[in-house]
Amino acid sequence: MTEPGKLSRRRLLGVVGAGAAVAGAGAAAGALTAQALSGDPVTTTSGAADAVPFHGRHQAGIITPAQDRMHFVALDVRTDDRAELVELLKDWTRAAERMTRGLEAKPDGAVGGLPEAAPADTGEALDLPASALTLTIGFGASLFDNRFGLADQLPPALAPLPAFPLDDLDPARSDGDICLQACANDPQVAVHAIRNLVRLGFGKVAVRWSQLGFGRTSSTSKTQATPRNLFGFKDGTRNLKAEEPDALAEHVWVGKADGPDWLVDGTYLVARRIRMHIEIWDRTPLAEQELIVGRTKGVGAPLGQVAEFDEPDLHVRGEGGIPVIAEDAHIRLASAEQLKGVRILRRGYNFTDGTDGLGHLDAGLFFVCFNKDSPTQFVPMQKALSSKDSMMEYLEHTGSGLFAVPPGVSENGHWGETLFHS
Amino acid sequence: MTEPGKLSRRRLLGVVGAGAAVAGAGAAAGALTAQALSGDPVTTTSGAADAVPFHGRHQAGIITPAQDRMHFVALDVRTDDRAELVELLKDWTRAAERMTRGLEAKPDGAVGGLPEAAPADTGEALDLPASALTLTIGFGASLFDNRFGLADQLPPALAPLPAFPLDDLDPARSDGDICLQACANDPQVAVHAIRNLVRLGFGKVAVRWSQLGFGRTSSTSKTQATPRNLFGFKDGTRNLKAEEPDALAEHVWVGKADGPDWLVDGTYLVARRIRMHIEIWDRTPLAEQELIVGRTKGVGAPLGQVAEFDEPDLHVRGEGGIPVIAEDAHIRLASAEQLKGVRILRRGYNFTDGTDGLGHLDAGLFFVCFNKDSPTQFVPMQKALSSKDSMMEYLEHTGSGLFAVPPGVSENGHWGETLFHS
Repeated sequence: MTEPGKLSRRRLLGVVGAGAAVAGAGAAAGALTAQALSGDPVTTTSGAADAVPFHGRHQAGIITPAQDRMHFVALDVRTDDRAELVELLKDWTRAAERMTRGLEAKPDGAVGGLPEAAPADTGEALDLPASALTLTIGFGASLFDNRFGLADQLPPALAPLPAFPLDDLDPARSDGDICLQACANDPQVAVHAIRNLVRLGFGKVAVRWSQLGFGRTSSTSKTQATPRNLFGFKDGTRNLKAEEPDALAEHVWVGKADGPDWLVDGTYLVARRIRMHIEIWDRTPLAEQELIVGRTKGVGAPLGQVAEFDEPDLHVRGEGGIPVIAEDAHIRLASAEQLKGVRILRRGYNFTDGTDGLGHLDAGLFFVCFNKDSPTQFVPMQKALSSKDSMMEYLEHTGSGLFAVPPGVSENGHWGETLFHS
Repeated sequence: MTEPGKLSRRRLLGVVGAGAAVAGAGAAAGALTAQALSGDPVTTTSGAADAVPFHGRHQAGIITPAQDRMHFVALDVRTDDRAELVELLKDWTRAAERMTRGLEAKPDGAVGGLPEAAPADTGEALDLPASALTLTIGFGASLFDNRFGLADQLPPALAPLPAFPLDDLDPARSDGDICLQACANDPQVAVHAIRNLVRLGFGKVAVRWSQLGFGRTSSTSKTQATPRNLFGFKDGTRNLKAEEPDALAEHVWVGKADGPDWLVDGTYLVARRIRMHIEIWDRTPLAEQELIVGRTKGVGAPLGQVAEFDEPDLHVRGEGGIPVIAEDAHIRLASAEQLKGVRILRRGYNFTDGTDGLGHLDAGLFFVCFNKDSPTQFVPMQKALSSKDSMMEYLEHTGSGLFAVPPGVSENGHWGETLFHS
C-alpha cells in the first residue's frame, strides 16, 4: 500500500504544492542562496523558496533577512537525564539541518519507511520547498537548575527580567527551559518544522506555550522594505541590519570579553507577547497616533523630516518651543540617543489569536529581539518605554521569555555543543 | 505632520512591502485576472497578488481558487434596529469591494484624512497588493429571530445542525448572527480586511469568535495542486471544482426550485473547527494511516490505484476477500457513491492556535464547506463519518457554525440586498 520506491521532499521540489513557492518580494530580495552541504545536493528554487545555510559561526534566524511567517515554541524539559537531553539535542540538530534544506525530518520520512512503522516525518510539508526555513534554539534560565549540572554555567545576563510597569504576564505564556524559533516564508513549513521537533522530543520535552506570527514587523537586512505593525505604522526602520557587522558585534553577538565561553558568538533572545488594543488605537486621531509614534504614518518619516530613513532630529522644536518629536514619543524613548547608545536587533511578528471573549480580536505584536546583554540593553529600553511611552496606553504585555542563544553549530556538531561539551 | 497629498494602497502598489508579493504557485496558476470596475482602474500585479472581482452572480470566495490564507470571524449583532443593520451591510459592501481591489477600506484611508480625525483605514495593509482577497458574508439562523423582521425568511435548511456522535463543541467557538470569511494569499491582507469590517461595525456588532487558517487544505480549481492537511495527506482530491458548473448547480448553488427566493444563487456555509490529535496520529503506522484514509500518503492515490486522480474502486478486494479500501475508510464514507450521490465543496484551512495546556499543540483543520442543502448533504456525510470513520479516533470537533450565504452583489447593490429588499 505504500509507494513504490522512496519519496523525499527534495525529489518533489519540482511539484507545485499548496502555496508552494511563496515569493515575498522583500524576502526574495534578501534571501540567501542555498549552500551546498554535505550529503544530498540541495535543489534550489528562486527567491523566498531557497534554503538558508544551517551551519555557521552564528545560528541562522537572527540576522537572516526576516522571513514572512514564524512559529515559536517554548518547551519544558521532562527528563532529568543529562545524556538523554544531549541525545535529543543531537537528534534535533540532524532534523533541523535537514528541514532547513527542504528535506524531511529524517531519511525515508513520511512514506519511505516500513508500512508497519509510524512514519519518520509527519508529511504535511512533503511537496513544499525549503521556503528559507531557519530554526534557532535558546536556553532559558530554568535549564540551569540542578537537573543537568549546568548551574555553574548560568550566564549572569540570563537573570530573570524585572517586572516592568503595567506588565500583565500570563505564566502559561512565559518562560520555558528551551525555545525553538522557526521562521519561513511558508507557514506550513514553519509549523511542520516545530511539530516534528516536538515529536522527536516526545517524553523528554512538553510544549509550554507557542505562538504563530503571520507577518514580520521588522527588517533585518537593508535589502528589505520596512513592514507595518498592527498600528499601521512602519516598524523597525532604525533596526540593526545584517549589513552592519561592527554594530552587530557591539550590540548582538556575545564576545570573548563578555562570556561565558560557551555563549561566545551567541546572543540572548527576548520574547514579549504584546497584546495591542487595536480598537482603541483605531479611534485615536491620526495626528495623535503620529505624535505617539514620532513618525508619519504614510512614508514613516521621523516627525520634522521627509523620508523614512532620514535621521530623527530629537532637538527640533516647533511652535511654542514644543519638541516636534514629543518627550514621550515611542521613537525618542527607544532611541540609542536617549539610551546611552543602546541598540537591539528586533525580529518580531504580528499575531492574531482569535477573540478575547469581549467582542474584540486578540491581536498584537509578538516582539522578539536579540541583544548581547539584556540587563543593559533590553531592560533599560523597556523600563523607559513601560514607564513613559504614551503608546503603553494601547499595549498589554501578556507573555515574556528570555533565552540564551548558543552560537552556530559546527559541521558534525550539535545545538548546545559548547554548553554540554559533548 | 501628515503626508503632503493623499496616499492610497493603489498608488503604493509598486512599492515592495512586507511579504508583499506572495506568489503561491498553485494559487498563481488559478488566480483570476483583475476586472476593470467602476471608478479607479485596478493596478494589476501578477499571479497571487491580483485582484478577484467582487461583483457577480455568486459571491467570491466560494469557487474562487482557494487562496493560501484565511481569517474567519463570526459576529453577534448588538443593535435591534433593522435600518442600522442594513446601513452597516451597505458600509461593509463598499469597504469590501474596495479592499478586494487592493484599496483602503475607505477613501483617504490611513493617512489622507484630517489630522484631528481617527484614520478611516487602519493602515497595516498600506503597501500590500490585493493578494486575491475575497470577502464572503453569511447569515446564521439567529439573525432570523424577532429583532429584524426576518422570521418568515428563515430557510428551513438553516435549521440547527444535529448533535453528531463525539461532538465536543464549545459555544464560544460556535454559531453567530453573521459570518465573514476573508481569504487572501497574504495573511496581513486578510487580517486587515476583517479588522476594518469589524471596526466599521463598532457598536453594532461584536466579535463572537474568529479563526486564522495558515494553509489551505482543499483545491477548488483544476488549476491547483492538492494541498496536504496536518495528517500529512493530500486532502480534497475529489472536491468539486470551479470548472464543473453542472455539478456546482446540482450541489452548491441554491436554485429557483430550491428557494427561498432571496437565497437563489447563494449557498450554505458549514464551518467545523476540528482539533486533530496529531501526536497520536503521528504514532500510528503508515499502513494504518493509509487504511484509515483510504489513500496512499505519498502521491495520494486511492488504495488499489496508482495516481492521485485515479477513480477509487470501492469494490476491489484483496487477500481473504477484505476490501482494499476498508469499510470504515474515510474516503469510502465520504464518497458520493456511499452517500447516494451527495457531494459538497470543501474549502478548509489548517490551523494552529498555540498550546492545549497539556504539552501538545492545539492544531487541526478549520473545515469549511459549501452546499445547497445541509440537511441532505453535509449532515448525512458527517453522520456517516462521525459514527463510522476510524479517523474519528484522532479528531475532536470543537466548534461549529451554519450560515446562509446570499448571492453575489449587484453593481451598486449590497450584501444581503435580496434578504432586506432595500
